[in-house]
Amino acid sequence: MISKSQIKLITSLSRKKYRDQHGFFVAEGPKVIDEFIAEGVALQLHFSTEISNIESSGIDQITHQELKKISNLTNPNTSLAVFKFPKQKIVAENGVRLVLDGIQDPGNLGTIIRLCDWFGISQIICSKDTVDCYNPKVVQATMGSLARIAISYVDIKDVLGETDTPIYGGVLGGQSLYAEKMATDCYLVVGNEGNGISEEIMALLTHKVTIPQYGVSQKTESLNVATATAILLSEAMRPTEK
Amino acid sequence: MISKSQIKLITSLSRKKYRDQHGFFVAEGPKVIDEFIAEGVALQLHFSTEISNIESSGIDQITHQELKKISNLTNPNTSLAVFKFPKQKIVAENGVRLVLDGIQDPGNLGTIIRLCDWFGISQIICSKDTVDCYNPKVVQATMGSLARIAISYVDIKDVLGETDTPIYGGVLGGQSLYAEKMATDCYLVVGNEGNGISEEIMALLTHKVTIPQYGVSQKTESLNVATATAILLSEAMRPTEK
Repeated sequence: MISKSQIKLITSLSRKKYRDQHGFFVAEGPKVIDEFIAEGVALQLHFSTEISNIESSGIDQITHQELKKISNLTNPNTSLAVFKFPKQKIVAENGVRLVLDGIQDPGNLGTIIRLCDWFGISQIICSKDTVDCYNPKVVQATMGSLARIAISYVDIKDVLGETDTPIYGGVLGGQSLYAEKMATDCYLVVGNEGNGISEEIMALLTHKVTIPQYGVSQKTESLNVATATAILLSEAMRPTEK
Repeated sequence: MISKSQIKLITSLSRKKYRDQHGFFVAEGPKVIDEFIAEGVALQLHFSTEISNIESSGIDQITHQELKKISNLTNPNTSLAVFKFPKQKIVAENGVRLVLDGIQDPGNLGTIIRLCDWFGISQIICSKDTVDCYNPKVVQATMGSLARIAISYVDIKDVLGETDTPIYGGVLGGQSLYAEKMATDCYLVVGNEGNGISEEIMALLTHKVTIPQYGVSQKTESLNVATATAILLSEAMRPTEK
């Protein structure tokens, strides 16, 4: 059973304004929901169309029609849950810290969060104009990874302006990424899908690195930011050669 | 002006069966279309809603309504063209040859084609159950890259079964990707999004490599196949350390 006020709350959470106001976000599908529960993220509401399969209590049964009303998915799964934002984790003071300067596409942010989880990067620092990590598309793309990474939205100019730690940035026309081993403790900045790293952040980079383009034609304009981040993180994390 | 038979032809090309029958595929938007023209791919039909801006001849003006009828995009651009399949290029006999074993998602194939173009990989060998590279979503995602890479759909078991060249495969639980420099001449196999490399191909691999997972939690199930391919190709192409 779902109440009118619950429907109103849940549908409002598709907008950042209301997510921030309530401190809640929506996750869908048993697999994704279970990942967040397993990570200890506080569950607020939990609905399912398949109550018979569920052992735990506190799950409300709803019809497929009701689920369709509250779902953000084109093809709703069997369940939907509302979680509280995880507590802001302690900010990493060493290791590789990824900085996102204006990433707009939820799919790209989702892929990047999964990559960080894979590579053990515990901290992502986002510019305030980066897409919200509790955007439903990001939540579905990252699955539990979202609960394991500290993601903060700050004025990245302030963070990078104050540090003595090396600041790498993925750019076009910089030094080959492979030319020099990246520092173990560093900030690594990747920029917006269309415009790259913004001018004011570009000025703060201590190392401008580029993934060399080997094609004879060299006509590919750029790599997708998520695949470029994959390559940059792999280089940052790979052990030094024997 | 667009005729009824042209509309019928173009809409039929959203299906692989008819693309193969005619040897034609559809590209949309001036930027993508211009890339294919620049690569010398033979143009069959070319329609635009913005004839005034176009200098070249042979472009037929159509209304936005007509474009909507023939477009594969949710938000149609201003132009649509039909191209002939590019001629099958000479198959690479050395270097890194990427092998795709059952990639299903057009977005992933598109990203992988762009990656190959970036890294100068001239040849992609696809299993017959890999998504068609002339699928409209792949065409839009790859832009001109599609014209610069030789893509063949074959029985990959036959190709890999006959060669003495090392065959690397991206797997879970293999040797660390970073442990050993990959051979300059090799096949590199990546597998299906859900199931990875198929059993019969797995048996043909000479090197099973894994992108090490550094996360303390190690709960991320797997990397997206396109980001994994990015990392594998970067390792295959990176120069040996001094």
